[in-house]
Amino acid sequence: MSLVDAALRECDATVVTIFVNALQFGSEEDLAAYPRTLQSDCRLLEQRGVDVVFAPTDEEIYRPGHETYVELGETARPMEGLFRPGHFRGVATIVLKLLHLIPADVAYFGRKDYQQALVVRQMVADLDLPVKICCCPIIRDPDGLAVSSRNIHLGPEERERALSLSQALDLAQAMVAGGRRDASEIQRAVEAHIRAVGKVRPQYVALVREGSVEPVHRVEGPTVLALAAVFGKTRLIDNGVLR
Amino acid sequence: MSLVDAALRECDATVVTIFVNALQFGSEEDLAAYPRTLQSDCRLLEQRGVDVVFAPTDEEIYRPGHETYVELGETARPMEGLFRPGHFRGVATIVLKLLHLIPADVAYFGRKDYQQALVVRQMVADLDLPVKICCCPIIRDPDGLAVSSRNIHLGPEERERALSLSQALDLAQAMVAGGRRDASEIQRAVEAHIRAVGKVRPQYVALVREGSVEPVHRVEGPTVLALAAVFGKTRLIDNGVLR
Repeated sequence: MSLVDAALRECDATVVTIFVNALQFGSEEDLAAYPRTLQSDCRLLEQRGVDVVFAPTDEEIYRPGHETYVELGETARPMEGLFRPGHFRGVATIVLKLLHLIPADVAYFGRKDYQQALVVRQMVADLDLPVKICCCPIIRDPDGLAVSSRNIHLGPEERERALSLSQALDLAQAMVAGGRRDASEIQRAVEAHIRAVGKVRPQYVALVREGSVEPVHRVEGPTVLALAAVFGKTRLIDNGVLR
Repeated sequence: MSLVDAALRECDATVVTIFVNALQFGSEEDLAAYPRTLQSDCRLLEQRGVDVVFAPTDEEIYRPGHETYVELGETARPMEGLFRPGHFRGVATIVLKLLHLIPADVAYFGRKDYQQALVVRQMVADLDLPVKICCCPIIRDPDGLAVSSRNIHLGPEERERALSLSQALDLAQAMVAGGRRDASEIQRAVEAHIRAVGKVRPQYVALVREGSVEPVHRVEGPTVLALAAVFGKTRLIDNGVLR
Protein backbone atom coordinates (compact mmCIF):
# COMPACT_ATOMS: atom_id res chain seq x y z
CA MET A 1 0.00 0.00 0.00
CA SER A 2 2.95 2.36 0.46
CA LEU A 3 3.81 1.88 -3.24
CA VAL A 4 0.18 2.59 -4.14
CA ASP A 5 0.17 5.74 -2.02
CA ALA A 6 3.36 6.96 -3.71
CA ALA A 7 1.82 6.39 -7.15
CA LEU A 8 -1.44 8.12 -6.17
CA ARG A 9 0.55 11.08 -4.87
CA GLU A 10 2.85 11.40 -7.88
CA CYS A 11 0.85 10.26 -10.92
CA ASP A 12 -2.33 11.22 -12.79
CA ALA A 13 -3.58 7.64 -12.92
CA THR A 14 -2.61 4.54 -10.96
CA VAL A 15 -2.81 0.94 -12.16
CA VAL A 16 -2.11 -1.84 -9.66
CA THR A 17 -1.09 -5.25 -10.98
CA ILE A 18 -1.79 -8.29 -8.82
CA PHE A 19 -0.31 -11.48 -10.20
CA VAL A 20 1.37 -14.32 -8.33
CA ASN A 21 3.95 -15.17 -10.98
CA ALA A 22 4.61 -18.93 -10.92
CA LEU A 23 7.62 -18.38 -13.22
CA GLN A 24 9.60 -16.72 -10.43
CA PHE A 25 9.04 -19.51 -7.91
CA GLY A 26 11.41 -22.47 -7.74
CA SER A 27 9.98 -25.99 -7.73
CA GLU A 28 10.79 -26.32 -4.00
CA GLU A 29 9.28 -22.97 -3.13
CA ASP A 30 6.05 -21.75 -1.60
CA LEU A 31 3.99 -20.94 -4.70
CA ALA A 32 0.92 -22.83 -3.46
CA ALA A 33 1.15 -21.26 0.00
CA TYR A 34 1.85 -17.72 -1.20
CA PRO A 35 -0.86 -15.43 0.21
CA ARG A 36 -3.61 -14.59 -2.30
CA THR A 37 -6.05 -12.01 -0.99
CA LEU A 38 -7.51 -10.53 -4.16
CA GLN A 39 -10.90 -9.54 -2.75
CA SER A 40 -9.61 -7.68 0.29
CA ASP A 41 -6.80 -6.19 -1.86
CA CYS A 42 -9.39 -4.80 -4.28
CA ARG A 43 -11.50 -3.38 -1.46
CA LEU A 44 -8.47 -1.53 -0.05
CA LEU A 45 -7.39 -0.32 -3.49
CA GLU A 46 -10.85 0.98 -4.29
CA GLN A 47 -11.02 2.88 -1.01
CA ARG A 48 -7.61 4.37 -1.78
CA GLY A 49 -8.83 5.61 -5.18
CA VAL A 50 -6.76 3.40 -7.49
CA ASP A 51 -7.94 3.73 -11.10
CA VAL A 52 -7.39 0.19 -12.38
CA VAL A 53 -6.56 -3.16 -10.85
CA PHE A 54 -5.03 -5.57 -13.37
CA ALA A 55 -5.27 -9.11 -12.01
CA PRO A 56 -4.88 -11.50 -14.94
CA THR A 57 -5.02 -15.29 -14.73
CA ASP A 58 -1.98 -17.49 -15.30
CA GLU A 59 -3.44 -18.56 -18.65
CA GLU A 60 -3.88 -14.97 -19.82
CA ILE A 61 -0.23 -14.17 -19.07
CA TYR A 62 1.52 -17.35 -20.21
CA ARG A 63 -0.24 -18.70 -23.26
CA PRO A 64 0.47 -22.20 -24.58
CA GLY A 65 3.76 -22.26 -26.47
CA HIS A 66 5.26 -19.35 -24.55
CA GLU A 67 9.02 -19.59 -25.05
CA THR A 68 10.51 -16.09 -24.70
CA TYR A 69 12.23 -14.94 -21.51
CA VAL A 70 14.55 -12.23 -20.29
CA GLU A 71 18.16 -13.36 -19.93
CA LEU A 72 19.93 -11.43 -17.18
CA GLY A 73 23.58 -10.98 -16.27
CA GLU A 74 25.79 -10.31 -13.25
CA THR A 75 23.24 -8.24 -11.34
CA ALA A 76 21.03 -11.31 -11.01
CA ARG A 77 23.77 -13.78 -10.05
CA PRO A 78 24.77 -13.35 -6.36
CA MET A 79 22.60 -13.27 -3.22
CA GLU A 80 19.01 -14.12 -4.18
CA GLY A 81 20.27 -15.44 -7.51
CA LEU A 82 22.30 -18.14 -5.77
CA PHE A 83 19.49 -19.32 -3.52
CA ARG A 84 16.63 -18.89 -5.98
CA PRO A 85 17.89 -20.06 -9.39
CA GLY A 86 15.64 -18.76 -12.16
CA HIS A 87 13.86 -16.37 -9.80
CA PHE A 88 15.00 -13.14 -11.45
CA ARG A 89 14.51 -14.55 -14.94
CA GLY A 90 10.87 -14.98 -13.92
CA VAL A 91 10.70 -11.55 -12.30
CA ALA A 92 12.25 -9.76 -15.28
CA THR A 93 10.03 -11.57 -17.78
CA ILE A 94 6.79 -10.72 -15.97
CA VAL A 95 7.84 -7.11 -15.33
CA LEU A 96 8.69 -6.65 -19.01
CA LYS A 97 5.35 -8.16 -20.07
CA LEU A 98 3.43 -6.00 -17.58
CA LEU A 99 5.21 -2.87 -18.78
CA HIS A 100 4.18 -3.72 -22.34
CA LEU A 101 0.59 -4.37 -21.28
CA ILE A 102 0.46 -1.23 -19.12
CA PRO A 103 2.75 1.40 -20.63
CA ALA A 104 3.39 3.18 -17.33
CA ASP A 105 5.52 6.31 -17.08
CA VAL A 106 6.58 5.31 -13.57
CA ALA A 107 6.67 1.88 -11.93
CA TYR A 108 6.95 1.44 -8.16
CA PHE A 109 8.95 -1.30 -6.47
CA GLY A 110 9.75 -1.93 -2.82
CA ARG A 111 13.20 -1.46 -1.38
CA LYS A 112 12.90 -4.65 0.69
CA ASP A 113 13.58 -6.53 -2.55
CA TYR A 114 16.80 -4.64 -3.01
CA GLN A 115 18.34 -6.90 -5.66
CA GLN A 116 15.04 -7.17 -7.52
CA ALA A 117 14.91 -3.39 -7.89
CA LEU A 118 18.48 -3.44 -9.24
CA VAL A 119 17.66 -6.22 -11.69
CA VAL A 120 14.60 -4.32 -12.93
CA ARG A 121 16.60 -1.07 -13.24
CA GLN A 122 19.33 -2.88 -15.18
CA MET A 123 16.78 -4.43 -17.54
CA VAL A 124 15.02 -1.11 -18.08
CA ALA A 125 18.33 0.58 -18.92
CA ASP A 126 19.65 -2.24 -21.11
CA LEU A 127 16.40 -2.65 -23.06
CA ASP A 128 15.69 1.11 -23.28
CA LEU A 129 12.27 0.75 -21.69
CA PRO A 130 10.62 4.18 -21.48
CA VAL A 131 9.72 3.94 -17.79
CA LYS A 132 11.07 5.41 -14.56
CA ILE A 133 11.61 2.91 -11.73
CA CYS A 134 10.82 4.28 -8.26
CA CYS A 135 12.00 2.37 -5.24
CA CYS A 136 9.96 2.91 -2.04
CA PRO A 137 11.34 2.52 1.50
CA ILE A 138 10.94 -0.62 3.55
CA ILE A 139 7.93 -0.45 5.87
CA ARG A 140 8.46 -2.07 9.28
CA ASP A 141 6.07 -3.28 11.93
CA PRO A 142 6.56 -1.62 15.35
CA ASP A 143 8.77 -4.54 16.44
CA GLY A 144 11.10 -3.91 13.46
CA LEU A 145 10.05 -6.79 11.18
CA ALA A 146 10.03 -5.68 7.53
CA VAL A 147 6.48 -5.91 6.19
CA SER A 148 6.04 -8.79 3.72
CA SER A 149 3.17 -10.88 2.40
CA ARG A 150 4.93 -13.94 3.77
CA ASN A 151 4.96 -12.69 7.40
CA ILE A 152 1.44 -14.10 7.76
CA HIS A 153 3.00 -17.60 7.76
CA LEU A 154 5.14 -16.93 10.87
CA GLY A 155 4.05 -18.47 14.16
CA PRO A 156 4.67 -16.34 17.29
CA GLU A 157 7.95 -18.08 18.11
CA GLU A 158 9.16 -17.84 14.51
CA ARG A 159 8.27 -14.18 14.37
CA GLU A 160 10.31 -13.59 17.52
CA ARG A 161 13.30 -15.29 15.90
CA ALA A 162 12.74 -13.39 12.63
CA LEU A 163 13.33 -10.13 14.48
CA SER A 164 16.99 -11.14 14.47
CA LEU A 165 17.18 -9.79 10.89
CA SER A 166 16.25 -6.18 11.64
CA GLN A 167 18.21 -6.38 14.90
CA ALA A 168 21.25 -7.48 12.91
CA LEU A 169 20.86 -4.43 10.68
CA ASP A 170 20.80 -2.20 13.77
CA LEU A 171 23.82 -4.00 15.15
CA ALA A 172 25.79 -3.45 11.95
CA GLN A 173 24.72 0.18 11.86
CA ALA A 174 25.98 0.62 15.43
CA MET A 175 29.28 -1.03 14.55
CA VAL A 176 29.79 1.36 11.65
CA ALA A 177 28.76 4.34 13.83
CA GLY A 178 31.36 3.11 16.30
CA GLY A 179 34.06 3.30 13.67
CA ARG A 180 34.24 -0.33 12.49
CA ARG A 181 34.87 -0.57 8.77
CA ASP A 182 35.97 -4.13 8.07
CA ALA A 183 33.24 -5.92 6.09
CA SER A 184 34.08 -9.44 7.25
CA GLU A 185 34.08 -8.36 10.91
CA ILE A 186 30.59 -6.88 10.46
CA GLN A 187 29.42 -9.96 8.53
CA ARG A 188 30.66 -12.26 11.30
CA ALA A 189 28.87 -10.24 14.00
CA VAL A 190 25.65 -10.18 11.96
CA GLU A 191 25.79 -13.89 11.28
CA ALA A 192 26.48 -14.62 14.96
CA HIS A 193 23.48 -12.54 16.01
CA ILE A 194 21.12 -14.28 13.58
CA ARG A 195 22.41 -17.67 14.75
CA ALA A 196 22.03 -16.73 18.43
CA VAL A 197 18.66 -14.97 18.35
CA GLY A 198 17.23 -16.32 15.11
CA LYS A 199 18.43 -19.86 15.85
CA VAL A 200 19.19 -20.31 12.18
CA ARG A 201 22.15 -19.93 9.87
CA PRO A 202 21.42 -17.09 7.43
CA GLN A 203 21.55 -18.00 3.73
CA TYR A 204 23.70 -14.97 3.05
CA VAL A 205 24.98 -11.85 4.78
CA ALA A 206 26.11 -9.56 1.97
CA LEU A 207 27.77 -6.16 2.18
CA VAL A 208 27.58 -4.47 -1.20
CA ARG A 209 28.10 -1.02 -2.63
CA GLU A 210 24.77 0.86 -2.48
CA GLY A 211 23.02 0.67 -5.87
CA SER A 212 24.92 -2.46 -6.90
CA VAL A 213 25.62 -6.08 -5.97
CA GLU A 214 29.41 -5.53 -5.80
CA PRO A 215 30.80 -6.86 -2.52
CA VAL A 216 32.80 -4.38 -0.45
CA HIS A 217 35.74 -5.23 1.78
CA ARG A 218 35.51 -2.05 3.80
CA VAL A 219 32.53 0.16 4.57
CA GLU A 220 33.60 3.46 3.06
CA GLY A 221 30.72 4.92 1.03
CA PRO A 222 27.05 4.00 1.46
CA THR A 223 26.92 0.23 1.81
CA VAL A 224 23.92 -2.10 1.76
CA LEU A 225 23.72 -4.98 4.17
CA ALA A 226 21.42 -7.60 2.66
CA LEU A 227 20.20 -10.68 4.54
CA ALA A 228 18.21 -13.83 3.88
CA ALA A 229 17.21 -16.54 6.34
CA VAL A 230 14.55 -19.21 6.69
CA PHE A 231 12.39 -19.31 9.83
CA GLY A 232 10.42 -22.52 9.99
CA LYS A 233 9.12 -22.80 6.43
CA THR A 234 9.22 -19.06 5.77
CA ARG A 235 12.11 -17.50 3.92
CA LEU A 236 12.57 -13.81 4.73
CA ILE A 237 14.88 -11.12 3.35
CA ASP A 238 15.79 -7.72 4.74
CA ASN A 239 18.33 -5.01 4.05
CA GLY A 240 19.48 -1.60 5.16
CA VAL A 241 22.03 1.04 4.22
CA LEU A 242 25.02 1.44 6.51
CA ARG A 243 26.32 4.98 6.57
CA MET B 1 13.01 0.00 -49.95
CA SER B 2 9.97 -2.22 -50.43
CA LEU B 3 9.49 -2.26 -46.63
CA VAL B 4 9.79 1.54 -46.59
CA ASP B 5 7.24 1.87 -49.37
CA ALA B 6 4.81 -0.37 -47.48
CA ALA B 7 5.21 1.75 -44.35
CA LEU B 8 4.80 5.01 -46.28
CA ARG B 9 1.65 3.61 -47.89
CA GLU B 10 0.08 2.28 -44.69
CA CYS B 11 1.23 4.60 -41.86
CA ASP B 12 1.01 8.27 -40.88
CA ALA B 13 4.71 8.50 -40.11
CA THR B 14 7.64 6.29 -41.05
CA VAL B 15 10.84 5.81 -39.07
CA VAL B 16 13.65 3.81 -40.65
CA THR B 17 16.29 2.27 -38.39
CA ILE B 18 19.73 1.57 -39.84
CA PHE B 19 21.99 -0.32 -37.48
CA VAL B 20 24.42 -3.12 -38.27
CA ASN B 21 23.94 -5.10 -35.08
CA ALA B 22 27.25 -6.73 -34.10
CA LEU B 23 25.37 -8.82 -31.51
CA GLN B 24 23.69 -10.91 -34.21
CA PHE B 25 26.93 -11.76 -36.04
CA GLY B 26 28.97 -14.80 -35.05
CA SER B 27 32.71 -14.42 -34.48
CA GLU B 28 33.42 -16.17 -37.80
CA GLU B 29 30.92 -14.09 -39.71
CA ASP B 30 31.09 -11.11 -42.04
CA LEU B 31 30.44 -8.20 -39.65
CA ALA B 32 33.38 -6.14 -40.92
CA ALA B 33 32.48 -6.79 -44.56
CA TYR B 34 28.73 -6.19 -44.16
CA PRO B 35 27.69 -3.40 -46.56
CA ARG B 36 27.32 -0.01 -44.85
CA THR B 37 25.90 2.64 -47.17
CA LEU B 38 24.45 5.18 -44.76
CA GLN B 39 24.84 8.27 -46.95
CA SER B 40 23.24 6.82 -50.05
CA ASP B 41 20.58 5.12 -47.87
CA CYS B 42 19.67 8.50 -46.38
CA ARG B 43 19.51 10.15 -49.77
CA LEU B 44 17.10 7.49 -51.04
CA LEU B 45 15.01 7.64 -47.86
CA GLU B 46 14.73 11.42 -48.02
CA GLN B 47 13.59 11.28 -51.66
CA ARG B 48 11.01 8.69 -50.67
CA GLY B 49 9.63 10.97 -47.93
CA VAL B 50 10.62 9.02 -44.82
CA ASP B 51 10.05 11.09 -41.67
CA VAL B 52 12.93 9.94 -39.50
CA VAL B 53 16.08 7.89 -40.00
CA PHE B 54 17.39 6.43 -36.74
CA ALA B 55 21.03 5.38 -37.21
CA PRO B 56 22.59 5.10 -33.77
CA THR B 57 26.21 4.19 -33.08
CA ASP B 58 27.21 0.89 -31.45
CA GLU B 59 28.05 2.77 -28.24
CA GLU B 60 24.64 4.42 -28.08
CA ILE B 61 22.88 1.06 -28.36
CA TYR B 62 25.09 -1.18 -26.18
CA ARG B 63 26.35 0.87 -23.25
CA PRO B 64 29.16 -0.44 -21.04
CA GLY B 65 27.84 -3.04 -18.63
CA HIS B 66 24.99 -4.13 -20.91
CA GLU B 67 23.93 -7.59 -19.70
CA THR B 68 20.28 -8.12 -20.61
CA TYR B 69 19.23 -10.18 -23.62
CA VAL B 70 16.19 -11.93 -25.04
CA GLU B 71 16.17 -15.67 -24.46
CA LEU B 72 14.31 -17.48 -27.24
CA GLY B 73 12.90 -20.98 -27.57
CA GLU B 74 12.12 -23.59 -30.21
CA THR B 75 11.35 -21.13 -33.00
CA ALA B 76 14.97 -19.98 -32.96
CA ARG B 77 16.56 -23.43 -32.79
CA PRO B 78 16.51 -25.16 -36.23
CA MET B 79 17.69 -23.89 -39.63
CA GLU B 80 19.45 -20.52 -39.15
CA GLY B 81 19.68 -21.23 -35.42
CA LEU B 82 21.86 -24.28 -36.07
CA PHE B 83 24.25 -22.52 -38.44
CA ARG B 84 24.32 -19.13 -36.70
CA PRO B 85 24.39 -19.80 -32.93
CA GLY B 86 23.40 -16.68 -31.01
CA HIS B 87 22.16 -14.95 -34.15
CA PHE B 88 18.49 -14.75 -33.17
CA ARG B 89 19.32 -13.81 -29.58
CA GLY B 90 21.06 -10.78 -31.08
CA VAL B 91 18.20 -10.09 -33.49
CA ALA B 92 15.51 -10.33 -30.81
CA THR B 93 17.44 -8.14 -28.38
CA ILE B 94 18.01 -5.33 -30.90
CA VAL B 95 14.43 -5.51 -32.19
CA LEU B 96 13.08 -5.27 -28.64
CA LYS B 97 15.33 -2.30 -27.87
CA LEU B 98 14.38 -0.55 -31.11
CA LEU B 99 10.67 -1.08 -30.42
CA HIS B 100 11.16 0.53 -26.99
CA LEU B 101 13.09 3.46 -28.49
CA ILE B 102 10.59 3.88 -31.35
CA PRO B 103 7.14 2.81 -30.14
CA ALA B 104 5.89 1.89 -33.60
CA ASP B 105 2.34 0.68 -34.21
CA VAL B 106 3.57 -1.43 -37.11
CA ALA B 107 7.03 -2.82 -37.83
CA TYR B 108 8.02 -4.13 -41.27
CA PHE B 109 10.24 -7.13 -41.86
CA GLY B 110 11.25 -8.94 -45.04
CA ARG B 111 9.99 -12.37 -45.94
CA LYS B 112 13.44 -13.44 -47.17
CA ASP B 113 14.40 -13.79 -43.50
CA TYR B 114 11.52 -16.19 -42.96
CA GLN B 115 12.66 -17.59 -39.62
CA GLN B 116 13.62 -14.12 -38.35
CA ALA B 117 10.08 -12.92 -38.95
CA LEU B 118 8.74 -15.93 -37.02
CA VAL B 119 11.15 -15.30 -34.15
CA VAL B 120 10.13 -11.65 -33.95
CA ARG B 121 6.42 -12.56 -34.11
CA GLN B 122 6.90 -15.13 -31.34
CA MET B 123 8.72 -12.58 -29.15
CA VAL B 124 6.08 -9.92 -29.76
CA ALA B 125 3.30 -12.35 -28.79
CA ASP B 126 5.13 -13.81 -25.76
CA LEU B 127 6.18 -10.42 -24.39
CA ASP B 128 2.87 -8.69 -25.21
CA LEU B 129 4.56 -5.99 -27.26
CA PRO B 130 1.93 -3.57 -28.59
CA VAL B 131 3.10 -3.71 -32.21
CA LYS B 132 1.89 -5.34 -35.41
CA ILE B 133 4.54 -7.21 -37.39
CA CYS B 134 4.15 -6.95 -41.17
CA CYS B 135 6.07 -9.28 -43.39
CA CYS B 136 6.80 -8.02 -46.93
CA PRO B 137 7.37 -10.27 -49.98
CA ILE B 138 10.79 -11.24 -51.25
CA ILE B 139 11.99 -8.95 -54.03
CA ARG B 140 13.94 -10.73 -56.79
CA ASP B 141 16.29 -9.46 -59.45
CA PRO B 142 15.22 -10.30 -63.04
CA ASP B 143 17.46 -13.41 -62.97
CA GLY B 144 15.60 -14.68 -59.87
CA LEU B 145 18.19 -13.91 -57.17
CA ALA B 146 16.52 -12.72 -53.97
CA VAL B 147 17.60 -9.14 -53.24
CA SER B 148 19.97 -8.91 -50.28
CA SER B 149 22.60 -6.46 -49.01
CA ARG B 150 25.15 -9.24 -49.27
CA ASN B 151 24.61 -9.83 -53.03
CA ILE B 152 27.11 -7.02 -53.66
CA HIS B 153 29.87 -9.41 -52.53
CA LEU B 154 29.12 -11.97 -55.26
CA GLY B 155 31.49 -12.17 -58.21
CA PRO B 156 29.88 -12.94 -61.62
CA GLU B 157 30.63 -16.67 -61.38
CA GLU B 158 29.37 -16.86 -57.79
CA ARG B 159 26.21 -15.03 -58.74
CA GLU B 160 25.60 -17.54 -61.52
CA ARG B 161 25.96 -20.38 -59.02
CA ALA B 162 23.77 -18.54 -56.46
CA LEU B 163 20.87 -18.67 -58.92
CA SER B 164 20.66 -22.35 -58.02
CA LEU B 165 18.69 -21.30 -54.90
CA SER B 166 15.77 -19.64 -56.67
CA GLN B 167 15.93 -22.32 -59.39
CA ALA B 168 15.64 -24.97 -56.67
CA LEU B 169 12.52 -23.23 -55.33
CA ASP B 170 11.02 -23.33 -58.86
CA LEU B 171 11.99 -26.98 -59.20
CA ALA B 172 10.29 -27.87 -55.92
CA GLN B 173 7.21 -25.89 -56.94
CA ALA B 174 7.08 -27.80 -60.20
CA MET B 175 7.39 -31.13 -58.39
CA VAL B 176 4.48 -30.25 -56.12
CA ALA B 177 2.44 -29.01 -59.11
CA GLY B 178 3.21 -32.37 -60.70
CA GLY B 179 1.71 -34.19 -57.73
CA ARG B 180 4.82 -35.07 -55.72
CA ARG B 181 4.17 -34.82 -52.00
CA ASP B 182 7.00 -36.62 -50.27
CA ALA B 183 9.18 -34.09 -48.43
CA SER B 184 12.40 -36.09 -48.55
CA GLU B 185 12.05 -36.70 -52.28
CA ILE B 186 11.71 -32.93 -52.83
CA GLN B 187 14.60 -32.21 -50.47
CA ARG B 188 16.84 -34.65 -52.33
CA ALA B 189 16.02 -33.08 -55.70
CA VAL B 190 16.60 -29.57 -54.34
CA GLU B 191 19.89 -30.54 -52.76
CA ALA B 192 21.02 -32.26 -55.96
CA HIS B 193 20.21 -29.15 -58.00
CA ILE B 194 22.14 -26.84 -55.68
CA ARG B 195 25.10 -29.23 -55.74
CA ALA B 196 25.01 -29.51 -59.53
CA VAL B 197 24.40 -25.87 -60.49
CA GLY B 198 25.53 -24.10 -57.33
CA LYS B 199 28.57 -26.37 -56.95
CA VAL B 200 28.10 -26.30 -53.21
CA ARG B 201 26.40 -28.41 -50.58
CA PRO B 202 23.53 -26.37 -49.07
CA GLN B 203 23.66 -25.84 -45.29
CA TYR B 204 20.06 -26.87 -45.01
CA VAL B 205 17.06 -27.67 -47.19
CA ALA B 206 14.05 -27.42 -44.86
CA LEU B 207 10.42 -28.10 -45.61
CA VAL B 208 8.29 -26.64 -42.83
CA ARG B 209 4.66 -25.87 -42.22
CA GLU B 210 3.98 -22.29 -43.42
CA GLY B 211 4.11 -19.89 -40.44
CA SER B 212 6.23 -22.24 -38.36
CA VAL B 213 9.56 -24.07 -38.22
CA GLU B 214 7.88 -27.51 -37.88
CA PRO B 215 9.27 -29.97 -40.43
CA VAL B 216 6.71 -31.68 -42.65
CA HIS B 217 6.96 -35.20 -44.05
CA ARG B 218 4.45 -34.61 -46.80
CA VAL B 219 3.47 -31.42 -48.61
CA GLU B 220 -0.21 -31.16 -47.77
CA GLY B 221 -1.04 -27.61 -46.71
CA PRO B 222 1.06 -24.52 -47.54
CA THR B 223 4.67 -25.51 -46.98
CA VAL B 224 7.76 -23.31 -46.88
CA LEU B 225 10.95 -24.51 -48.50
CA ALA B 226 13.84 -22.68 -46.83
CA LEU B 227 17.43 -22.82 -48.08
CA ALA B 228 20.88 -21.65 -47.05
CA ALA B 229 24.16 -22.05 -48.89
CA VAL B 230 27.54 -20.35 -49.07
CA PHE B 231 28.90 -19.13 -52.43
CA GLY B 232 32.53 -18.18 -52.12
CA LYS B 233 32.54 -16.18 -48.89
CA THR B 234 28.92 -15.12 -49.17
CA ARG B 235 26.22 -16.96 -47.27
CA LEU B 236 22.78 -16.59 -48.86
CA ILE B 237 19.31 -17.69 -47.83
CA ASP B 238 16.12 -17.96 -49.78
CA ASN B 239 12.65 -19.44 -49.34
CA GLY B 240 9.31 -19.87 -51.00
CA VAL B 241 5.89 -21.30 -50.33
CA LEU B 242 4.98 -24.53 -52.07
CA ARG B 243 1.29 -24.80 -52.77
